[in-house]
Amino acid sequence: MDIHAKKANEALSEPYQDRARMLISCPDGPGIVAAVSHFLHQHGANIVQSDQYTMDPSGGMFFMRVEFDLVQLERKLPELKEQFTGVANRFSMEWQINSVSRKKKLAIFVSKEDHCLVELIWQWQAGDLDADIAMVVSNHPDMKEYVESFGIPYHLIPVTATTKQQAEKMQLEAVGNDIDVIILARYMQIISPTFIEHYRNRIINIHHSFLPAFVGGKPYAQAYQRGVKIIGATAHYVTEELDGGPIIEQDVQRVSHRDDVTELKRIGRTIERVVLARAVKWHIEDRILVHENKTVVFN
Amino acid sequence: MDIHAKKANEALSEPYQDRARMLISCPDGPGIVAAVSHFLHQHGANIVQSDQYTMDPSGGMFFMRVEFDLVQLERKLPELKEQFTGVANRFSMEWQINSVSRKKKLAIFVSKEDHCLVELIWQWQAGDLDADIAMVVSNHPDMKEYVESFGIPYHLIPVTATTKQQAEKMQLEAVGNDIDVIILARYMQIISPTFIEHYRNRIINIHHSFLPAFVGGKPYAQAYQRGVKIIGATAHYVTEELDGGPIIEQDVQRVSHRDDVTELKRIGRTIERVVLARAVKWHIEDRILVHENKTVVFN
Amino acid sequence: MDIHAKKANEALSEPYQDRARMLISCPDGPGIVAAVSHFLHQHGANIVQSDQYTMDPSGGMFFMRVEFDLVQLERKLPELKEQFTGVANRFSMEWQINSVSRKKKLAIFVSKEDHCLVELIWQWQAGDLDADIAMVVSNHPDMKEYVESFGIPYHLIPVTATTKQQAEKMQLEAVGNDIDVIILARYMQIISPTFIEHYRNRIINIHHSFLPAFVGGKPYAQAYQRGVKIIGATAHYVTEELDGGPIIEQDVQRVSHRDDVTELKRIGRTIERVVLARAVKWHIEDRILVHENKTVVFN
Amino acid sequence: MDIHAKKANEALSEPYQDRARMLISCPDGPGIVAAVSHFLHQHGANIVQSDQYTMDPSGGMFFMRVEFDLVQLERKLPELKEQFTGVANRFSMEWQINSVSRKKKLAIFVSKEDHCLVELIWQWQAGDLDADIAMVVSNHPDMKEYVESFGIPYHLIPVTATTKQQAEKMQLEAVGNDIDVIILARYMQIISPTFIEHYRNRIINIHHSFLPAFVGGKPYAQAYQRGVKIIGATAHYVTEELDGGPIIEQDVQRVSHRDDVTELKRIGRTIERVVLARAVKWHIEDRILVHENKTVVFN
Repeated sequence: MDIHAKKANEALSEPYQDRARMLISCPDGPGIVAAVSHFLHQHGANIVQSDQYTMDPSGGMFFMRVEFDLVQLERKLPELKEQFTGVANRFSMEWQINSVSRKKKLAIFVSKEDHCLVELIWQWQAGDLDADIAMVVSNHPDMKEYVESFGIPYHLIPVTATTKQQAEKMQLEAVGNDIDVIILARYMQIISPTFIEHYRNRIINIHHSFLPAFVGGKPYAQAYQRGVKIIGATAHYVTEELDGGPIIEQDVQRVSHRDDVTELKRIGRTIERVVLARAVKWHIEDRILVHENKTVVFN
Repeated sequence: MDIHAKKANEALSEPYQDRARMLISCPDGPGIVAAVSHFLHQHGANIVQSDQYTMDPSGGMFFMRVEFDLVQLERKLPELKEQFTGVANRFSMEWQINSVSRKKKLAIFVSKEDHCLVELIWQWQAGDLDADIAMVVSNHPDMKEYVESFGIPYHLIPVTATTKQQAEKMQLEAVGNDIDVIILARYMQIISPTFIEHYRNRIINIHHSFLPAFVGGKPYAQAYQRGVKIIGATAHYVTEELDGGPIIEQDVQRVSHRDDVTELKRIGRTIERVVLARAVKWHIEDRILVHENKTVVFN
Repeated sequence: MDIHAKKANEALSEPYQDRARMLISCPDGPGIVAAVSHFLHQHGANIVQSDQYTMDPSGGMFFMRVEFDLVQLERKLPELKEQFTGVANRFSMEWQINSVSRKKKLAIFVSKEDHCLVELIWQWQAGDLDADIAMVVSNHPDMKEYVESFGIPYHLIPVTATTKQQAEKMQLEAVGNDIDVIILARYMQIISPTFIEHYRNRIINIHHSFLPAFVGGKPYAQAYQRGVKIIGATAHYVTEELDGGPIIEQDVQRVSHRDDVTELKRIGRTIERVVLARAVKWHIEDRILVHENKTVVFN
Repeated sequence: MDIHAKKANEALSEPYQDRARMLISCPDGPGIVAAVSHFLHQHGANIVQSDQYTMDPSGGMFFMRVEFDLVQLERKLPELKEQFTGVANRFSMEWQINSVSRKKKLAIFVSKEDHCLVELIWQWQAGDLDADIAMVVSNHPDMKEYVESFGIPYHLIPVTATTKQQAEKMQLEAVGNDIDVIILARYMQIISPTFIEHYRNRIINIHHSFLPAFVGGKPYAQAYQRGVKIIGATAHYVTEELDGGPIIEQDVQRVSHRDDVTELKRIGRTIERVVLARAVKWHIEDRILVHENKTVVFN
């Protein structure tokens, strides 16, 4: 397995030592792009990529993502952020600036179905997922040996009806304050509002249907029952409403009357893997802005 | 417009004078395929295409579609049907045999949105829809001139809350007993259970969402509200349950946060056109079998 | 047919009286976005949408598309353009600024296959194609009646091996200097280099294959012969190399061994229609920049 | 890793002890379906699924796939095959009957790119690939540890310009006579005609382009150069013509001007994995018939 570790080490981010990404949401108004790009230019930054979207030209919201290069970024970033506060306040911005070379830390939650976890680990070791998989948390021991073979810590925290609250406390401790994003890679337990509140817009779930169709349990059985001709999967941020959070990505595949529930699950596993991996990649690359219950994805 | 009429005349079905299609549904059991193919062979028919599906090998339903050529089909068909009764009864079959050269008669219902109607007429005049468009029925006058320019009768039957029952009576009279299938090409009125009963599994509706998501009115507005990343359309047979009948075909297209409701509608129109046209084509070519609330589509 | 004319009249562009689109290509370098957005801000314009792409951060090309609103645009546009010359020269820009309310003029070239023409006219009368179809040019009389029923002039210019040069002269005269873009909607004659030179990057062709597979004639027969499982269509700008120009858009659909050449053509017609309509829409909305033999499409 | 081995053991094929699949190719003529289904019925077999395709009703080829259940299949199969010879000879059939419970043996050839191999092993251990991976053959040591961790033998056979012939001899010895199908899972060496002859229509290659576009080396670089808007992958049987053999399956994904060669490769890896896995599954399930340079895939 060590052969893979090598690849992950020669990280994607190496050549981007001096690159940063800026995300902005604010009420729309004249002069925002000018102010931001002028600010960056003044501070010696070169804009490499810029995306922007106005929900409604008059009175709506404004969203922006900028990738820029700045020589000696690491040294200059704290000051840059401090000085940007002036621009930000003027336009009532919510904003963040992230250094590309600082890898995000992931905690992956999994139950017994392993395909989404295996996909994320494969993409990570292939160098396609530019992040650190800091830990795997599971309520089952099944994947322990596999996960640890990659040198990734595995927290086995069983969950039963009576120990649920205690288990969640242990999960919070395991995750700690250092994790950027939690991935529910077919983790089959409900997450409590308290837990969600700790990681608002930072918990990504994969639901095995084309939402909002087939909310809740056994979506493939529901799909078979309804006789749909296309099935899908949906990656979304977790909110208090079951399968109701902001949708990040969806994809589908054609099926036919010949496909029974087992076959739908088999086909679905590949859709789930691909959709979750895309959503995680976009989150890691700071491509997603959440507004109310929807996402703006700059990709 | 007459230039198009020519094409429709040099019909697709000409070379298939002696071809027929047989559709069978029955409880599964041993020997069905053997009995059917033996029967056809004995009567001098040559099987050109045969599809078959067993829902569940033990105790399920069996579905079959056979295309065959039989010299002097038209003369022999009545006797062939009569003699097939023996085979059919042995296996408790529901069945039909249709001559390919006998074109099915369509009645298209439309309101103000014209794209699905225009598509069907275009495919028909291009020779891609091997049927007769016997009439268009509408509650609005908007498309009258256009439809009549193709020599197709246009029945204008306004519908209001108070005249609904009377209007439906007029529709039934207009359609008569000679129509094989009714197409609701974005016809925005609810069809009564009585009407549906007359045309069980012979009324095809296009719903402008990926069912079962966004049942009912304004599905594009609902889709926008939910922030889905893919929109779709669904063709289904009409039953008493709103947007709940057997699904024939679905298709989808990717959208993004940039697409507002107007743009979703625009993108959706092309999906609706394509999905409805496929469903109609399959119905016309005897490719669809309905069982309970699902379809078997041999395509 | 007049019912449709109405829709086209209540044009999409009405609410965008004061909106303009700016397209820029130039060598990359620091400060471009800042300079452009600063310029627009200074002149009272509000950026509504901005897209930008750098081919290669160091030493590559830079592409930008900006939509902006400017009160009393029509009055101010000439001066705005003049003053922008300063910014443009500083960065060696190729650029254009187009008023959204000034509709582009299209000339559609067609031979006998009518599906792409019908699609464009349908989208135009539905209000989905925000342009003027100024004329149709054809080497066959087949579509004359249909086209003229929409009040669109039809130039019948027959082409034979011996009259080719003369015919092209007549085409150039018919098109004149007022046409923004020429659409080859399954026009089956080769265009001469002289003609292409007049409309560099302004002639859009639809090729009925997934280029670069199946260049040249009879692509569906070639596709059938090769046994591909997916067929496609490609919209591209016409260059001197047959089917070799910059690709604007492609799309595909799955086929099977059951589909013979006739069926491939039938399936393909819908792909062609959709792909060509998208490409034309993007051109009309100033979404396409050409660099060497490739396109940057901001959509 | 042993956790996975369990799953592969509780094989998909267990409940299908008595199921067999029959594949037939022959010149078309009347009575074939009747003869085959009558034969099976007479011998006590129950047809569970039957697909059939006639290339051209008059004078073309006929293809058929039948799945049937026969009590005590294993005991009766030799006799059934012997007796079927009569039917087969009458219609000049090429045919095979395979017991579903007899798993096919796979040899996977791989070089340095591991994604296709990892996918096949994952699908196999998930129980989705109902076959035995009998060995992996590679010209590089990179995947040895990984492959052997699943208990799969790894034959390291380096290939250089001078040792090519010798290496191929070693490969043939390693593969032996017991292997049903060879998978070139991004194996980057040319296979000799002699080798191909040994495994006619039993070597499946994944080519990383949408064939016939971009034959040969570096297809993603070629795709980038040409500026295509969609990339793809193709699984095909290997013939003497490079990337020219019968196509089994293809799939595609949309890309944009933003995707450089590295990104195309990344996107392509997922297409390659999915396409190859589907092709292997269909081969294993006896769904593919080859005729001249094309495949008939009953799925």
